[in-house]
Amino acid sequence: MITIVKLGGAVLEDNKKLNEFLNNFIQIKGKKILIHGGGRTSSDLMMKLGIEPKMVDGRRITDSVALEIVTMAYSGLNKKIVAKLQSLNCNSIGLCGADENVLSAIKRPSEPIDFGWVGDVSKNNVHTDVLHGYLKHDIVPVIAPLTHDGKGNLLNTNADTIASIVAQSLSRIDPVRLIYAFEKKGLLSDINDENSVIKEMNSSEYKIAINQSFIHTGMIPKLNNAFAALKQGVKEVYICHIKEINTLHIATRLVN
Amino acid sequence: MITIVKLGGAVLEDNKKLNEFLNNFIQIKGKKILIHGGGRTSSDLMMKLGIEPKMVDGRRITDSVALEIVTMAYSGLNKKIVAKLQSLNCNSIGLCGADENVLSAIKRPSEPIDFGWVGDVSKNNVHTDVLHGYLKHDIVPVIAPLTHDGKGNLLNTNADTIASIVAQSLSRIDPVRLIYAFEKKGLLSDINDENSVIKEMNSSEYKIAINQSFIHTGMIPKLNNAFAALKQGVKEVYICHIKEINTLHIATRLVN
Repeated sequence: MITIVKLGGAVLEDNKKLNEFLNNFIQIKGKKILIHGGGRTSSDLMMKLGIEPKMVDGRRITDSVALEIVTMAYSGLNKKIVAKLQSLNCNSIGLCGADENVLSAIKRPSEPIDFGWVGDVSKNNVHTDVLHGYLKHDIVPVIAPLTHDGKGNLLNTNADTIASIVAQSLSRIDPVRLIYAFEKKGLLSDINDENSVIKEMNSSEYKIAINQSFIHTGMIPKLNNAFAALKQGVKEVYICHIKEINTLHIATRLVN
Repeated sequence: MITIVKLGGAVLEDNKKLNEFLNNFIQIKGKKILIHGGGRTSSDLMMKLGIEPKMVDGRRITDSVALEIVTMAYSGLNKKIVAKLQSLNCNSIGLCGADENVLSAIKRPSEPIDFGWVGDVSKNNVHTDVLHGYLKHDIVPVIAPLTHDGKGNLLNTNADTIASIVAQSLSRIDPVRLIYAFEKKGLLSDINDENSVIKEMNSSEYKIAINQSFIHTGMIPKLNNAFAALKQGVKEVYICHIKEINTLHIATRLVN
């Protein structure tokens, strides 16, 4: 079993929470991969530089200036995480998609919306041999949300999507557990009650929930990625709090 | 023979020059490693953020804010270089010292000058197995000037020093050629004549040249690193223009 954990959100910007997350992460048994976002860190850096982040439908427009900034922000976070993991005796390697060509992508077409230097990935873009090579030697790959087009350009790519695609790709060889970790306890049946975590949701229930506008719109791309992973052979998919990644006592399990 | 090229200076900030450099770099035959700086990129980013870079004797004082910035600047450059090398069919991997613990360091003592988050390295800090592993598989390590203290902190480390230390360390197993590449043709006997490149300089001549104030003070740390490499078993050390790294037709060769 390979466990892939996607970490996003404010945890990346808070050293104390990040340390807590990593302490839980290292306790996950067996082969594991960490995939992180960095949108807030990037937006903060842009704001400090006096550049207004441009978003359409919650997705960043990555022009050349924004690409320079996200590249620095994501890569910097990546190296920071690796240094912390090393201090916890967890041997790790920070990767973006260009490293050993582990994750290439196609630049998104400029119609209908020109998102700029944004890459779309499919499971055929994952160089699984590279990841398996590290896992075999007990080295944890830590993946930043940057892919490349093979023409010398880095591309900004959604970390939830990367997590799903990498999970799908590795599922061809090993069973994979995919965990989307954040600061909520899971999907809630009552948005005002943090303890109303839905234990299990299948894809039919998910469709109904969307139609009933019961799912927060910000969660839909993440859940689409999660259900896509299940459809493409990923064995287990969970959504949970960073405190639960190694126990999964409280978590929403998504099923086909 | 392993060739280690250290690239610094303005080339890193100029896409056209960087592409030219990389096109020459990939033509170097056999196993090779690229080590890059990024001081100017970091200082530029600091200035844009309204933070004045603090320097003592040409060395950066790396407080916590500066560490965040150099981490982003160096790591971003690192990934950009790797993406460009991939487009030239040169399989490469971007590394900082924390990645696979390839290069640890000791935080510099705060006396007499507190340089902050700066790491000092010796050849025993280099995990040569990691580098050999990549070289054996024809993967070019691209190393950013960041080390780590094993306690979760990244450390800013001079790239010239890293190049020397890595060269020394790898020399235990393979003969190493170390090239310091920049935008001068080499050491000049007449500072006003770009064509007065000194073909060869030994360590005695170097000492005399320092005493006669004939060497530009900015070059002294680089040359100290270069001569230290020779003393510690590095077979060949050159200083040359980025255009000459694969031919070495015009270059200063340093000898013991």
